[in-house]
Amino acid sequence: MKTIEQNFAVPFRYGVYFTEGLFQPENTMLTDVLAQDNSASCRKVLFVIDSGVAEASPGLLEQINSYTSAHAQALQQVAEPLILPGGEDSKNDPEHLQTILAGINQFGVCRHSYLIAIGGGALLDLAGFAAAIAHRGIRLVRIPTTVLSQNDSGVGVKNSINAFGKKNFLGTFAPPFAVINDSNFLLTLEDRDWRSGISEAIKVALIKDEAFYQSIKQDARKLAQRDMATMQQLIHRCAELHVEHIGGLDPFEMGSSRPLDFGHWAAHKLEQLTKYSLRHGEAVAIGIALDVTYSWLQGMINAPEHDEILALLQELGFNLFVPELVQQGEDGQLSVIRGLTEFREHLGGQLTIMLLSRIGTGVEVHHMNPELVEQAIRFLQKKQQPHTQPQV
Amino acid sequence: MKTIEQNFAVPFRYGVYFTEGLFQPENTMLTDVLAQDNSASCRKVLFVIDSGVAEASPGLLEQINSYTSAHAQALQQVAEPLILPGGEDSKNDPEHLQTILAGINQFGVCRHSYLIAIGGGALLDLAGFAAAIAHRGIRLVRIPTTVLSQNDSGVGVKNSINAFGKKNFLGTFAPPFAVINDSNFLLTLEDRDWRSGISEAIKVALIKDEAFYQSIKQDARKLAQRDMATMQQLIHRCAELHVEHIGGLDPFEMGSSRPLDFGHWAAHKLEQLTKYSLRHGEAVAIGIALDVTYSWLQGMINAPEHDEILALLQELGFNLFVPELVQQGEDGQLSVIRGLTEFREHLGGQLTIMLLSRIGTGVEVHHMNPELVEQAIRFLQKKQQPHTQPQV
Repeated sequence: MKTIEQNFAVPFRYGVYFTEGLFQPENTMLTDVLAQDNSASCRKVLFVIDSGVAEASPGLLEQINSYTSAHAQALQQVAEPLILPGGEDSKNDPEHLQTILAGINQFGVCRHSYLIAIGGGALLDLAGFAAAIAHRGIRLVRIPTTVLSQNDSGVGVKNSINAFGKKNFLGTFAPPFAVINDSNFLLTLEDRDWRSGISEAIKVALIKDEAFYQSIKQDARKLAQRDMATMQQLIHRCAELHVEHIGGLDPFEMGSSRPLDFGHWAAHKLEQLTKYSLRHGEAVAIGIALDVTYSWLQGMINAPEHDEILALLQELGFNLFVPELVQQGEDGQLSVIRGLTEFREHLGGQLTIMLLSRIGTGVEVHHMNPELVEQAIRFLQKKQQPHTQPQV
Repeated sequence: MKTIEQNFAVPFRYGVYFTEGLFQPENTMLTDVLAQDNSASCRKVLFVIDSGVAEASPGLLEQINSYTSAHAQALQQVAEPLILPGGEDSKNDPEHLQTILAGINQFGVCRHSYLIAIGGGALLDLAGFAAAIAHRGIRLVRIPTTVLSQNDSGVGVKNSINAFGKKNFLGTFAPPFAVINDSNFLLTLEDRDWRSGISEAIKVALIKDEAFYQSIKQDARKLAQRDMATMQQLIHRCAELHVEHIGGLDPFEMGSSRPLDFGHWAAHKLEQLTKYSLRHGEAVAIGIALDVTYSWLQGMINAPEHDEILALLQELGFNLFVPELVQQGEDGQLSVIRGLTEFREHLGGQLTIMLLSRIGTGVEVHHMNPELVEQAIRFLQKKQQPHTQPQV
């Protein structure tokens, strides 16, 4: 009997908006964004908030309550916000997922209602996964509160939790309804979280945009000193590069190529090996240092550019080495090397790793030489020694 | 700062293939279908099989093993097939989902590997959900084994499990890599499962295709007597209508309209109220009878067509009534009425119910009158009485 062919394309559209003081009474960005759904009736909304954000911004819950009361014709909270712990470690606990799903069920949040998630990348990943699988997908508004989530993870199309000891083992591709970056949240960040997200900007600059790299280098001191205007510019450009890339060839990553994952094969494994005590951005900085050093040892990038990149990471306050880089598994191999296999298994298809031929230009390879990886690690260990004593 | 706009469309394509004896050594359909990925290397494959199918087809596991051995250059089983219970009730047990995810993890099934699921609609829903969320989506080949799954659920783009006592509470939209309908599996079906899926054909015929309805009516006796050629034709046309509809305006159901859910608001609730002892197709037959009767009481469809549809359902052996239709909740209201709210919450947006103005033509309404629903239920109760005694 004749084969039946199915063939369609699903269009997706969302905006990444920038503001300051989103929940101040006169700020209409949120209601304007929600009004894009052209709904005549009031919208049901459930907030999910990162406990770290709620603590760092003590007035936030009251502000949100006043805001939704003042805009009661546009949106209605179905319940008090759910407050959940943030940070990568919270993605290891399936109970948090269950809490959000139970709220969606109990409070009748439907496919045309909104989950509004406020927090760092981990909280957004978790809330996004819940939103993606409840009723086969309810609308999600992301309000990222860290540099990392405002310039990278929060503006993309993925969500996830960890399982089987593997980062992001469970998740989906699910574009948000909208993303709103409120720079006031950045004021409350610890230095670690302020710094952490800069590594993703360096990453995307290194593989795609030399001019952006040069501007980061020029602004390094201001960034380290927490100059807000400089940081806002960095976030905007970095988010723009991520959005452009994702909307490009392969938004749902059906092929093997993952240019945006430069520096990430080691980073993901290091997060796990350090039991998520490393921030994602800190792990990415080390992953970049490792793959740039490997690129140099491989004869790709030249020595001055290699030195310069490592110097920039250090000037911004990043470590280039953690003891877990030289941790050995039972087979005597460096544990981090296992990250290559896990990276391939997670992404699927042929191993595809982005390396650098020069600043601004990435090159994909399909093989990494374990001896050369170890050599690169030893180089970083030595380079780091003046700063910290590795506990090997 | 300037808003960043994201805008893209994701293309999806898959075929629904028809065969007999898929795992006979000389049948190359499976390897031909997998070869569409243009991969040069051998494909990793994990089979997930409905225990009911494994029991009804005792040689199946051996056949699959011989088949994969004979085609070792094309595909490689990463482990023995996972055998899991089928039937809607199995979607209530999160352990089954966990079993499949653990297998995907343990055996290194990646985003370019395949989960091949063989079974009825429930097993395919469950396996499809696991495939959709592991590594953010691994490739899924569905091999539906019942009439219902071959002509409806198995050829679409959804997956799900039940949660919080609600059918399909968790799930995603995730088009399969391919669907292969092997009619030999139909030979082993119990009469209930042979019959059950015919209700979905009547459903889609009633709302979309009068000629198809007339052909089902003409073939009713042959279908009831398990004439295979007639059933194959019914399945092909029904699958075709479903595939066409899904690929049409709104594959991922972002709007409020759900024409294909004709008869389903009551069906979903009845499955839950009967603790899933009703097959989905049996529940749909009752749901159709109910909404057709409501359409008639409402003055939409005329009496002769109403009579004729109920007569066809009965000729095929469907019940038009179960005692759970008149079960009352604590508030004294019929429990099934609560299904309207759950239906709306699950789909989102405005309540939108498909009714009939005539055979072949559906009409959407946004309100159902509870008294009229009850009147329709009483009508069906009375009509059924010659056949079974409702235990009220």
